[in-house]
Amino acid sequence: MESYKKLQNIYKRINNMEGAIHMLHWDFATYMPKGSIDSRSEQLAILQSTVHEMVISSEISDLLDQSEDNVDKLADSDRRNLSLMRHKWLHANAVDTELVEKLSILGTKCESKWRVAREEDDFASYEPLQQDVLDIVREIATVKSEIFKCSKYDALLDQYDAERRSSEIDKIFAELGKFLPDFISTVTDYQSTLEDPVFPEGKFEIEKQKALGINLMEIIGFDFNKGRIDISHHPFCGGTPDDVRITTRYDENDFTSALMGVLHETGHALYEMGLPEKWRGQPIGEPLGMSVHESQSLLMEMQVCRGKNFINFAAPIMKDALASGLDNENWSSDNLYKISSKVKAGFIRVDADEVTYPIHVMIRYDIEKDLINGKINIRDVPEIWNSKMKDMLGIEVTNYKDGCMQDVHWTDGAFGYFPTYTLGAIMAAQFYNSAKKDKDIEYGIKNGDFQPLLRWLRDNIHSKGSEYNSNDLVENVTGKPLDVSFFIEHLKNRFLS
Amino acid sequence: MESYKKLQNIYKRINNMEGAIHMLHWDFATYMPKGSIDSRSEQLAILQSTVHEMVISSEISDLLDQSEDNVDKLADSDRRNLSLMRHKWLHANAVDTELVEKLSILGTKCESKWRVAREEDDFASYEPLQQDVLDIVREIATVKSEIFKCSKYDALLDQYDAERRSSEIDKIFAELGKFLPDFISTVTDYQSTLEDPVFPEGKFEIEKQKALGINLMEIIGFDFNKGRIDISHHPFCGGTPDDVRITTRYDENDFTSALMGVLHETGHALYEMGLPEKWRGQPIGEPLGMSVHESQSLLMEMQVCRGKNFINFAAPIMKDALASGLDNENWSSDNLYKISSKVKAGFIRVDADEVTYPIHVMIRYDIEKDLINGKINIRDVPEIWNSKMKDMLGIEVTNYKDGCMQDVHWTDGAFGYFPTYTLGAIMAAQFYNSAKKDKDIEYGIKNGDFQPLLRWLRDNIHSKGSEYNSNDLVENVTGKPLDVSFFIEHLKNRFLS
Repeated sequence: MESYKKLQNIYKRINNMEGAIHMLHWDFATYMPKGSIDSRSEQLAILQSTVHEMVISSEISDLLDQSEDNVDKLADSDRRNLSLMRHKWLHANAVDTELVEKLSILGTKCESKWRVAREEDDFASYEPLQQDVLDIVREIATVKSEIFKCSKYDALLDQYDAERRSSEIDKIFAELGKFLPDFISTVTDYQSTLEDPVFPEGKFEIEKQKALGINLMEIIGFDFNKGRIDISHHPFCGGTPDDVRITTRYDENDFTSALMGVLHETGHALYEMGLPEKWRGQPIGEPLGMSVHESQSLLMEMQVCRGKNFINFAAPIMKDALASGLDNENWSSDNLYKISSKVKAGFIRVDADEVTYPIHVMIRYDIEKDLINGKINIRDVPEIWNSKMKDMLGIEVTNYKDGCMQDVHWTDGAFGYFPTYTLGAIMAAQFYNSAKKDKDIEYGIKNGDFQPLLRWLRDNIHSKGSEYNSNDLVENVTGKPLDVSFFIEHLKNRFLS
Repeated sequence: MESYKKLQNIYKRINNMEGAIHMLHWDFATYMPKGSIDSRSEQLAILQSTVHEMVISSEISDLLDQSEDNVDKLADSDRRNLSLMRHKWLHANAVDTELVEKLSILGTKCESKWRVAREEDDFASYEPLQQDVLDIVREIATVKSEIFKCSKYDALLDQYDAERRSSEIDKIFAELGKFLPDFISTVTDYQSTLEDPVFPEGKFEIEKQKALGINLMEIIGFDFNKGRIDISHHPFCGGTPDDVRITTRYDENDFTSALMGVLHETGHALYEMGLPEKWRGQPIGEPLGMSVHESQSLLMEMQVCRGKNFINFAAPIMKDALASGLDNENWSSDNLYKISSKVKAGFIRVDADEVTYPIHVMIRYDIEKDLINGKINIRDVPEIWNSKMKDMLGIEVTNYKDGCMQDVHWTDGAFGYFPTYTLGAIMAAQFYNSAKKDKDIEYGIKNGDFQPLLRWLRDNIHSKGSEYNSNDLVENVTGKPLDVSFFIEHLKNRFLS
């Protein structure tokens, strides 16, 4: 069909433009000179608005109408591809270009104010800008909620995990919220009866840490022919499926944080690298949203690499790479496993362990729902935040920077993003529970052969791209709807046995 | 005027898109993984064709017409800006988008085949791809020659140095061709009467060479807050005026080639960094084409940094950086000057000295004119190449890789580019002849103060952007039309005194 073919060409073009934007972001975070920031910001803003204009063009609108009129002539995957095009169009078209630009400008302003204000623990100077951003996001959410016929918050959520609704999340988080606080006590009590893990001593040269990371990435299946690893202040996975760029930051006194970060980003990277080549540049060939993306990084980091099998395999490799020649008990896999599975409630989400992490997310989720629904405003956040941290993690927040000002997400308007972290963790447990029924997978990991795992991920998840929504993917792969009990089961096995 | 303001906005957008393309090129040459080449080529092709479509849009066409109808309402520089917009439009509009994409795809293919084939001295497998590229360029040249009412070759030349015509180049090259062969003999005879320069011994660590380069770049005026230096196989200056990326390649056995390369690229970089900020994103704010760009790199490398004043100043810095602790006569400025001004006919253009270099260019110029005019084809090139090298430089080419397959330019269709190297050398001599009338300039260089030189370049050349064409710039700055005698005079002074 002519109109659908034209759409495919236009989306390929849009996708390539987005690819350029991703590369400019990567460069921004890795190699760009400091003084080039204004020029790069303008460059990115102009490219983004060009993409936006392409998506909302009347040409696309007409072609979508024509293709939908003839949808019965399309094969199933093309039909799905077309509906994803429409979904993107609806999101982009919902909102005036002016409003998009306003959010972009205010978001940048708020984010840079936040960077300074956070350092100085200065909530008062950040609060009005964050409220401005919130006001615009509320406006956008209101418009989109009418278009998608859902709540305002769900309309935002839909941008990060299409068709996900907060009613499901409420149920899942309620169940998890019932389980976790007691479980955290049980685990910390249990861990206090054990001998404390001892952190291997030494100054771990960055070059050696880098070589270790690259070695393990290669073993796991990262294709350095189509990707690389560099340094940035905030670790991320960027680039494009044919050119995946992950980053990390190294700490010479603690090799575990960079290493686990690298393995986490490798999970993201393998997903990108495994997306279906024949659908390159088309919406159906893209990753399925942030929950599934996070499920892939967490499956690799939490389910696999922090597990005993992997640590047994990797401990001697770590020792060889970082402490070659030394004979030091602290490099035993038992000790390294203890280090990597230590549970301790803390203030900072990004430093949290697997057990306490969901609490951080649930707190943000509750607060951002109320912010979007207009029940509360930014000035109300600190009190609510601190009281929830006290209730759910039992710790007393005494400043802003380690409390409600710790995350960048809200500053540029990314409300609705936070729950995808924990949805990803839950999916990861459910996916891996299915995967490991294939005995080759855990046998392989024990012996440093990741091919069976990678094959399973490729076949069941990566190669599917956006063929289904995330709920359908979970059900297709595991035979069951998304179910928090796999995650709870995993936590019990990991931390109490 | 409304229409002209709209044009300015559109050109700013186009310029930012081109900036993204430059960054993707830089990444391609420096950090991109090898296996990402196909995807990047497609990305670049699509971005380039998007830019092309923006430039030829009916919107721009209408706005140009409207603005030109009211041109008397514009200030002089806006009028010039408008005429440059039209010039770009004419170049872009001459050619179908399809043809542009075809050239881009074939060019990338030919270039990557060339990379392999050159290594293997395999002309046969490269020749058909290069012929394909030539065929498309001929097609483009034919169309453009009608639009610009000039010869086919001139239509290509016009892309690199607007309004430059081969009739002028023919005259200049004829004069230079009369002078050079005898002069080369005279110089080599003269140099054979002197004691041979001795190359400082040692293995020069890449990190040390890099630090030396950075140190001298800073002294000369490169702003590392808005630029950086990296490694690539072929040195170049890329990026954007607010984010200038130069590259080099290091040879541990010979520090001079990287160092002189870095100083050369620094000349390009200073030009970019000095372009008028108030015209950022507008055609009049862009560099004036490749001849003037090359004049800036050659002014820095040939006129300044290979001169006695600079070498006297820099010799101890070089010794400190690379041979710290050694007391070695070979680091005297006399010896280093001899090394840097040694004349010897050779096969490779990029390794050629200042005196023999123009011969390499003239040979390519003659051949590419005939290729474009259809007098010869790619298969005829080796024989002609080798016979011209014998005639004009007196050396016998015995393979392809050091002969007609040595350069990348033709592989992606950049016919018409080569003469700008020697035009740049001639301009550099003429510019510097005017500059050094300000006594502060050479006094500064002697003492490591590059501010007077940089100020002169900023005031007279960099800040002018594209206010005039290159012939007018030369005349405005030096009071005379482009004149090869300044270059000839410079060669006599440099090599026979």
